[in-house]
Amino acid sequence: MNYTFSNKISGVKPSAIREILKMSSDRSVISLAAGNPSPDAFPVQAVQKISAEILSEDPILALQYSVSEGYTPLREKLCTLAREHYHAMGAEDDLIVVSGAQQGLELSCKVLCNEGDTLICEDPSFVGALNAFRTYGVNLAGVAMEEDGISIGKLEEALKKEKNVKALYVIPNFQNPSGITMSLEKRRAVYELACRYDVIILEDNPYGDLRFEGEALPPIKSMDTEGRVIYCGSFSKILSPGLRVGFVCANKAIIGKLVVAKQCADVHTPILSQLICDRFLSEYDLGKHIEMLRDIYRKKCALMLGEIEKHFSPKVAYTRPQGGLFVWCTLPQGSDMPEFCRRAVTDYKVAVVPGTAFLADESAPTTSFRLNYTTPPDEQVVRGVEILGKLTREFCAD
Amino acid sequence: MNYTFSNKISGVKPSAIREILKMSSDRSVISLAAGNPSPDAFPVQAVQKISAEILSEDPILALQYSVSEGYTPLREKLCTLAREHYHAMGAEDDLIVVSGAQQGLELSCKVLCNEGDTLICEDPSFVGALNAFRTYGVNLAGVAMEEDGISIGKLEEALKKEKNVKALYVIPNFQNPSGITMSLEKRRAVYELACRYDVIILEDNPYGDLRFEGEALPPIKSMDTEGRVIYCGSFSKILSPGLRVGFVCANKAIIGKLVVAKQCADVHTPILSQLICDRFLSEYDLGKHIEMLRDIYRKKCALMLGEIEKHFSPKVAYTRPQGGLFVWCTLPQGSDMPEFCRRAVTDYKVAVVPGTAFLADESAPTTSFRLNYTTPPDEQVVRGVEILGKLTREFCAD
Repeated sequence: MNYTFSNKISGVKPSAIREILKMSSDRSVISLAAGNPSPDAFPVQAVQKISAEILSEDPILALQYSVSEGYTPLREKLCTLAREHYHAMGAEDDLIVVSGAQQGLELSCKVLCNEGDTLICEDPSFVGALNAFRTYGVNLAGVAMEEDGISIGKLEEALKKEKNVKALYVIPNFQNPSGITMSLEKRRAVYELACRYDVIILEDNPYGDLRFEGEALPPIKSMDTEGRVIYCGSFSKILSPGLRVGFVCANKAIIGKLVVAKQCADVHTPILSQLICDRFLSEYDLGKHIEMLRDIYRKKCALMLGEIEKHFSPKVAYTRPQGGLFVWCTLPQGSDMPEFCRRAVTDYKVAVVPGTAFLADESAPTTSFRLNYTTPPDEQVVRGVEILGKLTREFCAD
Repeated sequence: MNYTFSNKISGVKPSAIREILKMSSDRSVISLAAGNPSPDAFPVQAVQKISAEILSEDPILALQYSVSEGYTPLREKLCTLAREHYHAMGAEDDLIVVSGAQQGLELSCKVLCNEGDTLICEDPSFVGALNAFRTYGVNLAGVAMEEDGISIGKLEEALKKEKNVKALYVIPNFQNPSGITMSLEKRRAVYELACRYDVIILEDNPYGDLRFEGEALPPIKSMDTEGRVIYCGSFSKILSPGLRVGFVCANKAIIGKLVVAKQCADVHTPILSQLICDRFLSEYDLGKHIEMLRDIYRKKCALMLGEIEKHFSPKVAYTRPQGGLFVWCTLPQGSDMPEFCRRAVTDYKVAVVPGTAFLADESAPTTSFRLNYTTPPDEQVVRGVEILGKLTREFCAD
């Protein structure tokens, strides 16, 4: 038969990153294109011990259906964590466990937006979120990033100009892909604008715990007196992404709608995954574990930045993240960035992600590309950056 | 702030079953309202052994990000199973692993239907699927069930009358909630009508393996020469619902769209859940395990039917399922079924699900209610049916 798919899905292409990752499954390719936590960062022994305990003490609980809101003891621990550690939970708020922050973002868009509504995002931004929003037929309006976060002037222009703006999507800490952290002043300004123009803020904070430099800044959610911030957190970068456990804090009315959407989406997040997170929180010292992660990420980031300094053409600009997983590099204006990325992987077997993948308008021009320092082993970071360095000198020759 | 939610989510209420299940979390209530597998049916020792092996042999694989299509070795095993055991995989088909068949149904609706499109369903039908469809703003058109499955005459009327019909949703084996199995003739007739009116069939088969009486019938998917059947299968009733692992077989073009939607929904199904299913398939005898399940379900169903026969007013009609989890009871025309269900749980502490919960139009009149025989222990089945029996005699007094 001839298939007719829904309008909302027809325009969405498989993520460009996935296509690059497929190429980099070739073992001879050094991949600086991923966004995975460092394998060293997984608490393997803890998960082994915890899983055995869960399955011997209460196997039926781990195998039977559970509730859509999330396993109650885990939800209670996460409420405390969200209140005391993340400063992301107000008196009128509630919390739902989701299958990774990705699901939190996707379901938030589903409950907030009609087709044709506008969602404002940082430009560039996390492609997984942008694609999720696209699958609901929303209009994405990108607002340029500056060194200290989204441009407040351009954000206000967008809020004035765009029709039916329902929400603003931001990643204030060590943003994916730019590595940029939004300043405290801008967090306040963003919240004020959201109030003035009556839009929801969708605050995504998967990397917040991975700060290895500078002082922690409060989330926008901590300033939320009006219940207009939906905060998405995740175990993916602090425990394991494979477990697919995240959470959303928001006003009770919003969480109520998310519970309905979650029930329809997948009934509940796998209970074994939830039980592992729950027991990890009660039996292990999360603060100490996060310190260990920060040490790993600090070293890996410093290694990559040092090698970039050594090998890249001085004409290439790049961000110096205070945490997270990514460095964002920009070739001089007019450079053929797509050709740079293509030659890097085909001729030199080093995979990076072209910046276009992260734009609200994927056809807009950019000369940036994204590097990841957390997934590859150290020797591949060194070798990969050295090879890319030669290529940058070729592309920045005159 | 004042919240404005999307039109598609605003009309969907939390499932009525959930509300009843909340009441039945009161330990003194005997719940015949659930839809859970029997706890006796879980292969606890196997899962304990398998999990320990996975986490000691390849912990990074179990904790790291994975691919949206599903873990490749599991997908390969499921393709073989779908081809040889379920007869649900054609030459042009592909397979995706999803977070329970619920996600397969929800994503299928997302990729197929625009808001306002029509989806035809059996009436009554599985409320989880109906609610998922409602969250995409589709128009649900219910077609009455007969003893041997959906009414073919009324189905053709609906196909003629309804506008923009995209798909027909059916559960041919031991349907939820009715327990009815669609005859072979009707399976053929349904497929022919789908071809004639050019609609997709969404075939949901969570209970197919749980046949404890009569001969297995081929799925509609086995007759699919045109690539118009999307087949949803699940590990929920044969291994564990808590793991949230299901699969969808359909034409490659459809699976391609489902992969995009899945990536946006939750990146991938938790990999530990997938690895447990994968290893269960390679290390254990699925056929033997299913035989054990059938014995449990056969006994539990016979127990409930025997007690119904003993205690219910002869004016109550009920189905005699050949498999699955449910018995569908119907009070005489004109009975106040909602009041029956209310009094059962509040006065007599026995929870059942009112039939309205399963209707495409929840405000339509019905005198039916659903009973589950798999979740409660035997003594609660006996006691619960005895109590309900008294209440049926009260409601059918004259």
